[in-house]
Amino acid sequence: MNGQVPFGVADYFWDEARDRQRLLNQLMETFRVWGYGDVIPPMFEFDSTLSAQYDDRLRRGMYRFLDRDGSTLSLRPEFTTPVARLVGARLHDWPMPQRFCYGGSVFRYVEPQAGRQREFWQVGGELIGTPTPAADAEVLALTATALNVAGLHEYRLILGHIRYYRCLLEALALTPPQSQQLQWALERKSEPLLADFLRDIPLRTGQRQAVESLPHLVGGDVGGVLSQAERHIQNRGMHEALRTLRQIVDALSGYNILDHLVIDLTEIRNLGYYTGISFEALTPGLGTAVGSGGRYDDLVGRFGPSQPAVGVALGVDRLLVARRRQEEANVVERRQRRSPALALPRGSAAALAQVQALRMAGAHIQLDVNGWSVDTAFAYATQTGVRDVLLWQEGFQHYRSEGDGDFAPLGLLDESQLFCE
Amino acid sequence: MNGQVPFGVADYFWDEARDRQRLLNQLMETFRVWGYGDVIPPMFEFDSTLSAQYDDRLRRGMYRFLDRDGSTLSLRPEFTTPVARLVGARLHDWPMPQRFCYGGSVFRYVEPQAGRQREFWQVGGELIGTPTPAADAEVLALTATALNVAGLHEYRLILGHIRYYRCLLEALALTPPQSQQLQWALERKSEPLLADFLRDIPLRTGQRQAVESLPHLVGGDVGGVLSQAERHIQNRGMHEALRTLRQIVDALSGYNILDHLVIDLTEIRNLGYYTGISFEALTPGLGTAVGSGGRYDDLVGRFGPSQPAVGVALGVDRLLVARRRQEEANVVERRQRRSPALALPRGSAAALAQVQALRMAGAHIQLDVNGWSVDTAFAYATQTGVRDVLLWQEGFQHYRSEGDGDFAPLGLLDESQLFCE
Repeated sequence: MNGQVPFGVADYFWDEARDRQRLLNQLMETFRVWGYGDVIPPMFEFDSTLSAQYDDRLRRGMYRFLDRDGSTLSLRPEFTTPVARLVGARLHDWPMPQRFCYGGSVFRYVEPQAGRQREFWQVGGELIGTPTPAADAEVLALTATALNVAGLHEYRLILGHIRYYRCLLEALALTPPQSQQLQWALERKSEPLLADFLRDIPLRTGQRQAVESLPHLVGGDVGGVLSQAERHIQNRGMHEALRTLRQIVDALSGYNILDHLVIDLTEIRNLGYYTGISFEALTPGLGTAVGSGGRYDDLVGRFGPSQPAVGVALGVDRLLVARRRQEEANVVERRQRRSPALALPRGSAAALAQVQALRMAGAHIQLDVNGWSVDTAFAYATQTGVRDVLLWQEGFQHYRSEGDGDFAPLGLLDESQLFCE
Repeated sequence: MNGQVPFGVADYFWDEARDRQRLLNQLMETFRVWGYGDVIPPMFEFDSTLSAQYDDRLRRGMYRFLDRDGSTLSLRPEFTTPVARLVGARLHDWPMPQRFCYGGSVFRYVEPQAGRQREFWQVGGELIGTPTPAADAEVLALTATALNVAGLHEYRLILGHIRYYRCLLEALALTPPQSQQLQWALERKSEPLLADFLRDIPLRTGQRQAVESLPHLVGGDVGGVLSQAERHIQNRGMHEALRTLRQIVDALSGYNILDHLVIDLTEIRNLGYYTGISFEALTPGLGTAVGSGGRYDDLVGRFGPSQPAVGVALGVDRLLVARRRQEEANVVERRQRRSPALALPRGSAAALAQVQALRMAGAHIQLDVNGWSVDTAFAYATQTGVRDVLLWQEGFQHYRSEGDGDFAPLGLLDESQLFCE
């Protein structure tokens, strides 16, 4: 008569189960109204598919077992790799970008802590097939919206770029032990260890200053941090990383979330597959991130033709803990969507604001993040079954097709046309 | 560059994933409006918790692996045992009955077939703490409602009772090999094998006739089948099984599903824990059941104080296959519930019809299945946080409490009072 459950997993029931299920549904619906389509990968995969993509820490934390045919399987520890596998192996011939969202259990051997178990729920999305800063900005803005939907209004988005530090390392041309010494100092954010490193390793003045400045390249004064970092550029890669961050910050100004943004070029951790921006969502009173994400331009290509990609995953368990410490969720009444629409905002903040309002009301709208021409947008819409295209020209001009690829102009957008009544 | 997934699991995406997720949500919501509360058990448990409850076939089909501390874990192959464990071990001090619903992945090594994988989705509910035929009838009626919600209107509920055959076996006092011979004949529904058995084993005339009649105790003429079976009663257990079935059939007449009901006393399979009724939901063109359930009065007691219980689980994958072969789902617009209500229908078919209509509109209503007095109902409602009690007296009389245990009469039910506006 053993009524225990294994260490690190739990039963949820009554209101706690209902809240958990409801939050998962609300977050999924948030991704859907941004034009992300559902994907449900298996609960386990071939271990070789997953393990090869992760860093040591995540790889060590996987639940493995044998299939009846002797192959090793792993419970999924996250969703990004399964989605990248699906797109790389099966969906590579479909038009890009492709947007996917998911929600459900993931599994990691971790020491349980506040709001975290060995089985926990993630909700997230992947935007695959676009290298643009606009795509990065969309995922950041979507993260902010999801946090709002979860009832969190006090939060920080901590944004870094893997390549700023990696390219600095290249410029320094360190030996592996020297790299390790620097990484230890930075991971511990330890000034004494960093001073040791600078004493031990001879560097040119500019390089030395770049290393010395690293711990200071963090803060909510986004423009200031980027300007300071620009003074220490050693090569083209560092320059491009900072230019990308500037473009993302510009794009985010249309989403009204700059107050929540913190640039952090000292964050050098990595799940193993990030190649560009990486970010975490933090909330007061919780020691760990409620969400994280980044750009992974090399992952899809391990399973098929290469595709740039960026995504985010939110921890439902941690969001529930964080929400209990903040105000109640603001449940938004949503109308029924009519069908997905594709909007070309053409850099207008007013366009973004209108798209956001329509999404809040439940319209499913995906944004052009490529800077497409009208014809390219019409072609993509036709190929992917999108009937409504919204083109910004001092207001959204509405074009509709009956599926034949012929988009008729309907004039200035009548918003009700995007909903079923 | 391996983009395959393991044998027996699959990726779902785009509309297929959306339909799957939506059907799961609709079914969960159906259980909720019948007063079932969410429960989310872990994806895996101690193998000893699960394996001990199952028959050989299910036990052989489990995915097992080692936890880091050396204990053996199993991916859940169904939800009933975890819910029984939860109620037995942790919730036994709370008022009965307790109603729980769940949805998600379960795992079994099976040969994949139409609409069935090694990972598949179940949605179901458990009604724990009540031995009455009214509870059995509720679960059957709820099953029928869920099939309707899933868009299936052509279906059969095949209802049997484990104890009719078990008690006949007791009366026959067979040796184990003789029992096995009879079971083979009946499982194969083979008249020649049954004739062999009757030739080999000497039986008294009444017993012989009871065995001979077994293959014929099946059909949609519910009253006729039960009358025929009653002619072959050998002991008290067989009598009680048939009386229970008659009471369930009576109770179901209020739910308008008798046209879908088939009595089958020849069904002798068992997951390992059924002790009373057992049933399957069948639909044309699909070789396997889309749902099944039954009464398991001994299972909760293996984890704590004994409690009678009955439940059902539906296979989401099979429902999706079956629905594609029938008409489109009829999506019901639901209003927001106000709070759960407890209804005492007192045997009135009109009361049941009104409860069903209110549930269709989205009110959350649990039914008294114990035949409680008003005072008992008020006490249960107070203990479980239910504010509205509906008492049938030529119409529903509405009583409301502000949580203090004092139920004020509001007169004849104004239905809008059960919704938020």
